[in-house]
Amino acid sequence: MRSEKLVVIGGDAAGMSAASVARRHRPDLEIIVFEQGPFTSYSACGIPYYVGGMVPDHLSLIARTPETFREKQHIRVRTGHRVTGIDPRNRRVTAINLESRRELTESYEQLLIATGSRAMDLEVPGRQAARIFPIKTLEGAVELRRTLDAGQIRRAVVVGAGYIGLEMAEAFLRRGLEVAVLEKASQVLVTLDAEMANQVAEALEGEGVRFFFEEPPVAFEMAAGAVQAVVTPNRTLPTDLVVFGMGVRPASELAAAAGIELGVQGAIRTDRRMTTGIAGIWAAGDCAESPHLLTGQPSYFPLGTVANRHGRVAGVNIAGGHAEFPGSLGTSVTKACGMEVGQTGLLESELQKMAIPYASEKISSHTRSGYYPGSDPITIKLLASLENGRLLGGQIVGGRGAGKRIDVIATALQAGLTAEQVSELDLSYAPPFSPVWDPVLIAARQLARLIG
Amino acid sequence: MRSEKLVVIGGDAAGMSAASVARRHRPDLEIIVFEQGPFTSYSACGIPYYVGGMVPDHLSLIARTPETFREKQHIRVRTGHRVTGIDPRNRRVTAINLESRRELTESYEQLLIATGSRAMDLEVPGRQAARIFPIKTLEGAVELRRTLDAGQIRRAVVVGAGYIGLEMAEAFLRRGLEVAVLEKASQVLVTLDAEMANQVAEALEGEGVRFFFEEPPVAFEMAAGAVQAVVTPNRTLPTDLVVFGMGVRPASELAAAAGIELGVQGAIRTDRRMTTGIAGIWAAGDCAESPHLLTGQPSYFPLGTVANRHGRVAGVNIAGGHAEFPGSLGTSVTKACGMEVGQTGLLESELQKMAIPYASEKISSHTRSGYYPGSDPITIKLLASLENGRLLGGQIVGGRGAGKRIDVIATALQAGLTAEQVSELDLSYAPPFSPVWDPVLIAARQLARLIG
Repeated sequence: MRSEKLVVIGGDAAGMSAASVARRHRPDLEIIVFEQGPFTSYSACGIPYYVGGMVPDHLSLIARTPETFREKQHIRVRTGHRVTGIDPRNRRVTAINLESRRELTESYEQLLIATGSRAMDLEVPGRQAARIFPIKTLEGAVELRRTLDAGQIRRAVVVGAGYIGLEMAEAFLRRGLEVAVLEKASQVLVTLDAEMANQVAEALEGEGVRFFFEEPPVAFEMAAGAVQAVVTPNRTLPTDLVVFGMGVRPASELAAAAGIELGVQGAIRTDRRMTTGIAGIWAAGDCAESPHLLTGQPSYFPLGTVANRHGRVAGVNIAGGHAEFPGSLGTSVTKACGMEVGQTGLLESELQKMAIPYASEKISSHTRSGYYPGSDPITIKLLASLENGRLLGGQIVGGRGAGKRIDVIATALQAGLTAEQVSELDLSYAPPFSPVWDPVLIAARQLARLIG
Repeated sequence: MRSEKLVVIGGDAAGMSAASVARRHRPDLEIIVFEQGPFTSYSACGIPYYVGGMVPDHLSLIARTPETFREKQHIRVRTGHRVTGIDPRNRRVTAINLESRRELTESYEQLLIATGSRAMDLEVPGRQAARIFPIKTLEGAVELRRTLDAGQIRRAVVVGAGYIGLEMAEAFLRRGLEVAVLEKASQVLVTLDAEMANQVAEALEGEGVRFFFEEPPVAFEMAAGAVQAVVTPNRTLPTDLVVFGMGVRPASELAAAAGIELGVQGAIRTDRRMTTGIAGIWAAGDCAESPHLLTGQPSYFPLGTVANRHGRVAGVNIAGGHAEFPGSLGTSVTKACGMEVGQTGLLESELQKMAIPYASEKISSHTRSGYYPGSDPITIKLLASLENGRLLGGQIVGGRGAGKRIDVIATALQAGLTAEQVSELDLSYAPPFSPVWDPVLIAARQLARLIG
């Protein structure tokens, strides 16, 4: 009897997590992964640090190579293969070897779609110029770093002021470049409420980054084939290099073409077990939607944490077990120019849109005891329901030790704690780590008072 | 009509928190605080950093002076006054002015006992020698630092390897001294299980600290009135200075003499509103007991966080409101020689003593993504109930970013989450802050598997 076969499309976080978990539960399963690029399981989140030179070698970003997957886990990874079609009725996929251009067909009993996401791009004149880099793949990062290492680059323009955009801005500063950031919105980090996000922009401005808000590029000027300026409705910004950090969209075309239903923001519709609408086909990672942990609404969270958790759930279920993805709060953290940023749950703007009655409180404190060296300012904003007092969201901006405090708030959100209950948490204190009242407690206390 | 009077005995964290909160709720209240030392509201936890020279001035450790309390909050603080007796029947206290030796009497309607704790001392020959310092008061710290600043001190012996003892050991290293630590137990930090604590000892040994376990001092040798050696059953250790960091005991003698019931470890018996057994008399801070948040058992937590929370609860109740202290997990954090340590909830040894069926898991990971500069090892130990899967305790030892992760575990404990639920928390990730699976999630996942 032939063993059952799992085919995975996409060899990154979600796909390889699922393959590994399925392998652990099912030693008999045949597992084949198609990956269009040359790498598996690399940290896309590490790219800005590699470009900035803090991580010397791109290979350090790779958690596990195709060879290791083959040798240690008997998972066959076909890198350099793009899947071109899914045939759900006959349970097979077609793929093309990108080097030989040879087409091949692979049958499956179970199929996991883990095609990830694509960087948002711009369809404007001059887009074809050299030295314009969408920040998405490790191959692209290697090319970008090679361009920087070659010298000659003095100025960079970052399009998009999300997490990746700001991390890239810092990476360029670190390499001594003049940096400008263009953002179509009126603030950086639209995952934060404006008054919190503005603090982050100010920190980057303090290091010399110039921001141009509500100024999307309308064209790129080039000379000798390479970009030499970005044109906006208001100005022409000379530059030697452009990167895109405008966010991502789900790479769900293949699924759509196979008749699989798409959901929010074009991500593959999935249930909590990561099944799609078609039997035997699963989806996980940046290509798939997730329920929001607070609202239950289908949401899109293209985050490494979510991709790994999706993959684990899919892997257990594919192997015949039962696992459910409980949902996500979109918890995230980043760091730019010494400013740490954390976010979890719902924003004030989202609560307004959903017409949920809420209270909001923002406090300022310090990350350590005021007298301890390196005590930095921290601002925490908390949101809670006016109906039951439960926490609905949290945002943190501050210096050393600020960002990871978001995890306490995420834990409280997930446990359904009220602002009052959070204000009574028994959090740790010592001068190198916190004031005696941790800033999270101060914020929760004030919010609880407001709710009354 | 005369206004109601609140008398507070002790002008530190618990006493001044209570006085401030009572003032906010009751502008009419007359508030008098007796404090035997010259200072109010100082950070005892900051003393090791002041002695080590990281905090230049002892005045920076003072959060609020007696003058500020008087001017901003109309709270009269009588520093240099020791309360010598409580007369509950006639509702008055007697006190002595330590300078003039004049005795005085003060009546009260409400009395808060916030007498704090005393450093454990040793009754051995030679104890009266100069240069032996119990680490407890700011006055004592000023004297210790003056001794160090005068030069001539090359060697120090720390008696006791708890948090304060290890922080003092590091302070002395920082000042270039040879440091030995004597501890009567067989490990450092008895608030941790041995295998976790041993990692901390190794880190300090790596910096040159010598440990002598199960070696309590039996005598001090002196020359010209000053200590010159510590004698143990096994050796004589020459030294220029000795500090005690053997923990504290409640300063509850005054309460006991007034007929107030004492509880665990000699701390004043209190209920959740911080009342004592006698009407109109409250107790808060290091002199009072607390319920353990998990077991409900009366416990003794001489921690700054607990003292402040006690004080707030007492203040609300004294002012006629209603507040309850929910209990403590004993959550704590410290740092010694680059090693961060966090602890919350119950220890394995405590669970064994209480015959609670539990599962235990210990994992090793990193504080940041492995490729990110400054990624340090971290060890997390988690304990959970075998009956319902709920988390019962957590311990963390590791490098930069390790310690404050204990707050996520404390939050989970307080919310009653199971190991399985903790493993599904949506915690934040970015390379400068965490591996994609936060170490807390890894530990919880493994523990959940173990429980099955």
